[in-house]
Amino acid sequence: VSGQPATTLDTILDLSLYQHAEGYRFSLDAVLLYSFVTLRDARGIADLGAGSGVVGLLLAKKYSKAHVTLVELQKGLYRLVERNIKLNGLEGRVEAQLADIRTLGGLHGLDAAVSNPPFRKPLTGRLSREDERAVARHELELTLPELARAAASVLKSRGRFYLVHLPERLADVVDVLREHRLEPKRVRFVHGRRGSEARIMLIEAVRHGRAGIKVESPLFVYEDDGKTYSSEVRRIYEE
Amino acid sequence: VSGQPATTLDTILDLSLYQHAEGYRFSLDAVLLYSFVTLRDARGIADLGAGSGVVGLLLAKKYSKAHVTLVELQKGLYRLVERNIKLNGLEGRVEAQLADIRTLGGLHGLDAAVSNPPFRKPLTGRLSREDERAVARHELELTLPELARAAASVLKSRGRFYLVHLPERLADVVDVLREHRLEPKRVRFVHGRRGSEARIMLIEAVRHGRAGIKVESPLFVYEDDGKTYSSEVRRIYEE
Repeated sequence: VSGQPATTLDTILDLSLYQHAEGYRFSLDAVLLYSFVTLRDARGIADLGAGSGVVGLLLAKKYSKAHVTLVELQKGLYRLVERNIKLNGLEGRVEAQLADIRTLGGLHGLDAAVSNPPFRKPLTGRLSREDERAVARHELELTLPELARAAASVLKSRGRFYLVHLPERLADVVDVLREHRLEPKRVRFVHGRRGSEARIMLIEAVRHGRAGIKVESPLFVYEDDGKTYSSEVRRIYEE
Repeated sequence: VSGQPATTLDTILDLSLYQHAEGYRFSLDAVLLYSFVTLRDARGIADLGAGSGVVGLLLAKKYSKAHVTLVELQKGLYRLVERNIKLNGLEGRVEAQLADIRTLGGLHGLDAAVSNPPFRKPLTGRLSREDERAVARHELELTLPELARAAASVLKSRGRFYLVHLPERLADVVDVLREHRLEPKRVRFVHGRRGSEARIMLIEAVRHGRAGIKVESPLFVYEDDGKTYSSEVRRIYEE
């Protein structure tokens, strides 16, 4: 027992990924967020609140000319990000930054930012047992306005911000993004299956964009049986 | 030729309806808006911009204790509303009002308001050839903020506002509703069929409600063949 948390080695798409056995682990949300990013080309990308680095690393593999900065506040996760960058041989183009995005400096003019932020408002929903997971799931360390401000500050004009969040926060997310001149342009709702309400939403906002949203076709995670992954989700995993 | 516009007599659910042969005619939007209203009980309902009266009259049939006010600005449509009230024997509970909802007085404390308002912003989208249809489809006579203000003014606290609008206006609709303390609580997106983007959206907002939205299961108008009405739409028409 070294004092380091136990890790697992997992594979996700064409990525190898160390994750803490306990605490924050990536979920389908992260993969869906990644697949929602439809940039034609990108030179500079930031992952704000990178966790183990899964979304940013997938994007680095997809956009082979991009420099990707993975910003993470928690030291344990930051170390994991550093390991994952090396594990995938991406030291040249991907950089981990141990930083609080509320006081982030030095990142500017990027093409895209992504975030799979803490969900739920403080004091709503149950706190998870482990602190790390709690911080990653709740707006304890990072509120939505702070996240929007950070995204706006790192993006160039017309840069894109990709966010996964809860549908119940739709109105708040729209308001807060617009306050920071991040105009929602594409929204996709993710449902467990046909006939059930949305569980998460994917949003693309464009800095200084014009008003006008496209609500894309709904994404169903499961077939009507509620067990088998839908053909669309299977396709994402087989990419 | 009497100078009156030609009318057709149509049947929609359990309603008979005169409509102008040319000009504004109800569409699937109106029927979907009606079916989106899930009040347990209602005493006072207003239809803001009633057109031929279809939504308000359907609601009057559904809520047999409700007094329904059909507000319409255009004189030709107002006369049609009056005829349709009589045609369906609803003179006792349903009232037509020739009025501009921007200067509406006398309606207060209602349980619900509905609106199938002019879509598109001025100068976007093509104008229809007939003026009546143009006014009904465009924000020429009525802007979204004016509509929200009117809805807020007629509703009691906790009263519900049901609105059909374009998904591309999602952010504007959310912002404007909230500015008038109409909190979006339920949203349903209507898609042509599976795999296609949303064509219209149905929104329920609660006056003085708490933040928190439920994004319901998507409604598909057609089966995957793109021709046959979906079983859900068939069910609405068979109610």
